[in-house]
Amino acid sequence: MKTEFEFIQWLRTRAGNAPANLIAGIGDDAAIFSPASDRELLVTTDLLVEGIHFNLEYTPPSLLGNKALAVNLSDIAAMGGRPNYFLLNIARPRTMADNQLEAIVTGMLSLAEERSITLIGGDTSASKDRLFISITVIGECERGKAIKRSTAKPGDKICVSGSLGGAALGLELLKAGKRLKDMRSEIENTGALRNYLTETVPLRAHLAPQPRLALGATIGARALATAMIDISDGLSSDLGHICKESGVGAEIYAQAIPVTVGASLEQALNGGEDYELLFTVAPERESDLEVLRKEFSTTEITVIGTITAGSDRWIIKDEIKKPLLSRGFDHFENF
Amino acid sequence: MKTEFEFIQWLRTRAGNAPANLIAGIGDDAAIFSPASDRELLVTTDLLVEGIHFNLEYTPPSLLGNKALAVNLSDIAAMGGRPNYFLLNIARPRTMADNQLEAIVTGMLSLAEERSITLIGGDTSASKDRLFISITVIGECERGKAIKRSTAKPGDKICVSGSLGGAALGLELLKAGKRLKDMRSEIENTGALRNYLTETVPLRAHLAPQPRLALGATIGARALATAMIDISDGLSSDLGHICKESGVGAEIYAQAIPVTVGASLEQALNGGEDYELLFTVAPERESDLEVLRKEFSTTEITVIGTITAGSDRWIIKDEIKKPLLSRGFDHFENF
Repeated sequence: MKTEFEFIQWLRTRAGNAPANLIAGIGDDAAIFSPASDRELLVTTDLLVEGIHFNLEYTPPSLLGNKALAVNLSDIAAMGGRPNYFLLNIARPRTMADNQLEAIVTGMLSLAEERSITLIGGDTSASKDRLFISITVIGECERGKAIKRSTAKPGDKICVSGSLGGAALGLELLKAGKRLKDMRSEIENTGALRNYLTETVPLRAHLAPQPRLALGATIGARALATAMIDISDGLSSDLGHICKESGVGAEIYAQAIPVTVGASLEQALNGGEDYELLFTVAPERESDLEVLRKEFSTTEITVIGTITAGSDRWIIKDEIKKPLLSRGFDHFENF
Repeated sequence: MKTEFEFIQWLRTRAGNAPANLIAGIGDDAAIFSPASDRELLVTTDLLVEGIHFNLEYTPPSLLGNKALAVNLSDIAAMGGRPNYFLLNIARPRTMADNQLEAIVTGMLSLAEERSITLIGGDTSASKDRLFISITVIGECERGKAIKRSTAKPGDKICVSGSLGGAALGLELLKAGKRLKDMRSEIENTGALRNYLTETVPLRAHLAPQPRLALGATIGARALATAMIDISDGLSSDLGHICKESGVGAEIYAQAIPVTVGASLEQALNGGEDYELLFTVAPERESDLEVLRKEFSTTEITVIGTITAGSDRWIIKDEIKKPLLSRGFDHFENF
């Protein structure tokens, strides 16, 4: 087994190219960087705990590393910013082999490289029995352009990127014994793509979410959204966060919600972990929304409803209006 | 048991006053702040894992919270900077009661308040069985004034604040069954302070380290040190980090090392977790060092040796010169 020092040295050689405003990365008591004077900084942190957020039995280690970073990048995208740096804390169970640990970190670093994000620090430790990963991401946006949750206005259109429910369906498939690695051989053996949409896509949605970095940064740079959040807890909960923080209500149309093929409306509403962007657009910016849609032609952007005055949230299905309950994930309860 | 949402609301009301350049703290996808244009930012993160870094059997929860933040603040002090913000990730075992969790966080927040540091974000989770705390601290210093490990020069004096070995002695006492809460009643009952220096002080050194924030920031503002680090791994290891990163050697005098009353030289050299500052001062700045000593009159600042050319590190004891081995703590091994 590598010593902690050897592991840190191994990491250090893989941290990525230092951007111009990074003065010192890994290897000192703290990282040092010099932010541009016309920028605001964005900072977010997330925790992934074995047995709560992931299960190593069905999570390929490189995808786990990828996801641990991706969910943090998604938070920066949801502010309309661009991620620049990250710090990694990892506590490794004694049963975890070097190559498994390195696969996790390699998965993370390959996403970092792809998105030009630099590892600038962290901490390593043993753990008695479970793997813990804690990542902090620092990003930036132009001054005054960060998009909060708390600034949606009555009349704004409610928009969502991509499709929802795929991650929840993927988790259901994993629990039922489906594995991502089997999908490829099944396709190769049968020569058919029949399971691609209903199995491979949802498995990938759960195991390898793709944060909407370019879309979030573009919405931010154009000040196109009045409020934005990423869908981590689920549409019903995350729309609830926007409404509560903004002091507004909402009405959404069940038929308008872009549900991932194979997933249920329930999974799209309450499943969580899709890491799509949920944002609100003022009516006078609808033509700018059209421009955005054309530019991001491979990403569905769907209007699913309207922000209202008051505080009630409704879902309209088959012309019947029902209260939209936030059925979010409580990490203290669900284990 | 509080839900995750209730716990976050509880935290949010206790996050502390928002400084002028904080635009948004807890409650959005990311915190937003606007750094002053003449500043460099410093960022550090540390992990505390139950059963590795602490034992809840003998660690009062409020002191655990205090220490989890203190060790991160110490890293910013060691850069010559001032800490401003922190983010808290905490994974709570299902056996942990609300009041224990809240005592940990209250201990942390009282240190934050005392040092004017604001909680700006974080993440909460359950954990299957162990408590896990990960903290990220963001600080700042004037542009170009961060003090690295890598810039010590031959001829520089090696200085250390406070005394060393206390935290290691404290841990030894805890493992032998001594408890901080018993100390006070023993003193009250006997009316004697006989155990204060040899037991209460080391127990407090281990359980409630005091980061040298004012000293570190002052050394930084005056560019008084050529290199600086905080003593977390132990003097032998941390001096080794300065030497390796700077490409220099060192000679220290065993008799000069300020050993905590009751501790051994071995504990002072290799014990770790004292969170004192180890720094190097150019010979031409010795008069400035004297000025600093007078200003920080309640903090011992001791010259323990000299940086040398080459890469060898020596300790001189009773006129005999021996190699100074780095006997640092390997968190992958020591459990």
